[in-house]
Amino acid sequence: MPTHDADYHLRRSPPTIAVVGATGAVGTEFLRILAEREFPVGELRLFASPRSAGKTLTFDGHDIGVEALSENGFAGADLALFSAGSGTAREWAPVAVRRGAIVVDNSSAFRMNPAVPLVVPEINAAEIARHDGILAVPNCAAIIAITPLWPIHRRNRIRRMTLATYQAASGGGAAALAELVAATRAHLAGDLYAPRVLPHPYAFNLFSHNTPIDPATGYNEEETKVIAETRKILADPGIRIGVTCVRVPVQRAHSAAITIECARPIDPGEARALIAAAPGCRIVDDPAANHFPMPNEATGIDDILVGRIRRDLSDPSGHSLSLFVAGDQLRKGAALNAVQIAEHLLP
Amino acid sequence: MPTHDADYHLRRSPPTIAVVGATGAVGTEFLRILAEREFPVGELRLFASPRSAGKTLTFDGHDIGVEALSENGFAGADLALFSAGSGTAREWAPVAVRRGAIVVDNSSAFRMNPAVPLVVPEINAAEIARHDGILAVPNCAAIIAITPLWPIHRRNRIRRMTLATYQAASGGGAAALAELVAATRAHLAGDLYAPRVLPHPYAFNLFSHNTPIDPATGYNEEETKVIAETRKILADPGIRIGVTCVRVPVQRAHSAAITIECARPIDPGEARALIAAAPGCRIVDDPAANHFPMPNEATGIDDILVGRIRRDLSDPSGHSLSLFVAGDQLRKGAALNAVQIAEHLLP
Repeated sequence: MPTHDADYHLRRSPPTIAVVGATGAVGTEFLRILAEREFPVGELRLFASPRSAGKTLTFDGHDIGVEALSENGFAGADLALFSAGSGTAREWAPVAVRRGAIVVDNSSAFRMNPAVPLVVPEINAAEIARHDGILAVPNCAAIIAITPLWPIHRRNRIRRMTLATYQAASGGGAAALAELVAATRAHLAGDLYAPRVLPHPYAFNLFSHNTPIDPATGYNEEETKVIAETRKILADPGIRIGVTCVRVPVQRAHSAAITIECARPIDPGEARALIAAAPGCRIVDDPAANHFPMPNEATGIDDILVGRIRRDLSDPSGHSLSLFVAGDQLRKGAALNAVQIAEHLLP
Repeated sequence: MPTHDADYHLRRSPPTIAVVGATGAVGTEFLRILAEREFPVGELRLFASPRSAGKTLTFDGHDIGVEALSENGFAGADLALFSAGSGTAREWAPVAVRRGAIVVDNSSAFRMNPAVPLVVPEINAAEIARHDGILAVPNCAAIIAITPLWPIHRRNRIRRMTLATYQAASGGGAAALAELVAATRAHLAGDLYAPRVLPHPYAFNLFSHNTPIDPATGYNEEETKVIAETRKILADPGIRIGVTCVRVPVQRAHSAAITIECARPIDPGEARALIAAAPGCRIVDDPAANHFPMPNEATGIDDILVGRIRRDLSDPSGHSLSLFVAGDQLRKGAALNAVQIAEHLLP
C-alpha cells in the first residue's frame, strides 16, 4: 500500500466522494447521513455490484446513476466510503488509494491490519491521523457494545467482559432485512417460506449468528471479531472477553446484555454519570417506568441507548456491573461511524 | 396449611383432576399434555376466572364446561393443577388442599415457601415426597436454564453463572402472545398498534422483562426469581448468579446464553457428554451446519435444546464454559413440568 501524504487530511473540500456498495443497506444510509450532517460533497459517485449497476439513487435532489466498479471510477476521488463486503474491499480499496482517495471501509478486510486505524471516534479519534490511505470501521456489534464502556474503561480499566448480543437483521444486509419481513409476513398468512438469505427460519425465531465457527474455540466469526476488535480499539490486548452473538427478529438496531469487571470497585451511579457525560451515549434507565434501551427507540438515531446499569450480583467484590445497550446497526454501527471518521479527515 | 397424609401420593387413580386457569396459555397446554402422556384422568373439572367461565374446552373427545372457582368445585378433587397467577393461587390452593387435593402450582405464590417443594423432576424429584399439599413449578426461565446445568453441577459444582435470556411472549400469557401477533400484523400493514398487554411495542422489538425493578438491586422480579429459585432447586444457597431477562419477539420458546464457572476445570466435551446423557435435554450443537438451539425447533417438544458448548474465553483458568439453550416455555417451562410432578404423585 503506498504511503499517503504526511498530512492525514483530505486534499480538498468539498471532496469528490465515491460510495462503494451504494445500493446496500449501509450504502443508502451513507447518503442519508452525508446529507443530514451537511458533509461537504463535491462530486458524488455511486458504485455497486454489476447486478445493481444502472440503478439510480437520489442525493440532495439529484438523481445519480449507479456504476459498476472500475479503476477509472476512482480517478480524482478524494474520499471513498466502502460498504461492499471484504472481498470487494480487498480488491478495490488499494485501487482507490492508488488513485489518491482516502478509504473508510466498513468491511472486516483491513480491521486487524496493524497499519490500519480501527476507529470509533468517541474512543480513539487520535488514531485517524496515522492512516496510510485506509481506515476501518469496526464490527457493528463491537461499536455498539464498547462505545458506552469506554468512559468507564478509561477511568477504571475493564479487565473482563461477558456479552450476549441481540442482533438485528440489517447486520446481514438489505436482503436479510427483507427476508425477516417476508418470512414474518408469510408466517402470519400461514404460508410456507423457505429461507434464502439466512440459514434458518427467521419469523418469530432467533439463532446463533450465522458466521462460520472456529473449530479451535467454538466461537463464530462475529464473536471472534468482537473480541479482537475490542482489544484493538481499546488498545488493551489483555482484556478478557466472552461473547455470544445471536440474531433476533428485529429490523435494524442491535442490543447487548453486558457484564464488566473493573480493576477497581465501581458503583452503578458512578458508571451512569460517566456514560451520561460521554459523547454518543444516552442514558435510558428508568426503573419506575420499566423503560430501558429498546431497538425500536434506538432506530434512526445517532446515540447508543444505555440502561439497566446495576451491580452484577454474581460478583460480591463490587468490581462488576451489568448493563443493557441498544444502537442503530446501520447508523452508529456502520454508516454514521464511517462519516464521523470522514469528518475528522476534512481539511 | 393442614399437614397432608404421611403417604405423599394421590389417594386414588385415576384421580379427579381440577385444572385452574384452564383457558390460559398454560391451562390449555395442561390438557394437551395430560392427553399426550396418557395421564390417568377420572373426572376432569375446569376452572377459570369469572370472565372465562361458561366457555367449553374439549378433552379426550368430551366437551367440558369451564366454571368459576368455588369451594365446592374442589369437593372430591384429588389433584389440582393451578396456572392462574399468584393471587388466585394464594387464595384457592389452600382451599383445594383443605378439600383433599394435592396442588401443583405454576405461579410464584409458594415457590420460596420452605415447606413447599420447588421441583424440576430431572433435578430434585426426591423433594416431591416431602410435600404438605402444595408443590411448586419453578419460573419458566429458571427451569429452561438449569435443567441442562444440573448434570454438570452434580459432578463439578457450578459456583457462578451469568445468564442473558431471550424470553418468548407466551411467558406473559395468552394475551401477550396474541399481542405479539397482532402488533406484528399491524406493523407489517403500516397500521398503528397501541400496546395493551405489554408496556412496550412488541413488533420486531425487544425489551427488558416487564416486571417491577427491586430498587435495592436494580434487578427485575423475573431476574430475582431466577436467582432465588435456582439456589433452592439446586439446594445450593451459595451459588453466585447474575442474570438479565429480556423479552424477544418469539412466540413460545425461551432461550438463554449462559456462562458457568465450575469449582474444578471442565472440558466442553465432558460437559456435552454429561448433558447428552441427562434426561430432558437434547444436544443440538453442529458447528459445521451452524445448527444450534433455536426457539422454532424447541417449540412443541419436551426436551430442552442445548448447544454452543464451548470454553468461556474470558476465563483462562479452564473452569468456565458458555452454552446456549432453548426450551418450550409452555411445556417444560410450565405445563409439562407440572404434569411430570403429578406423575410422581400417582399411587
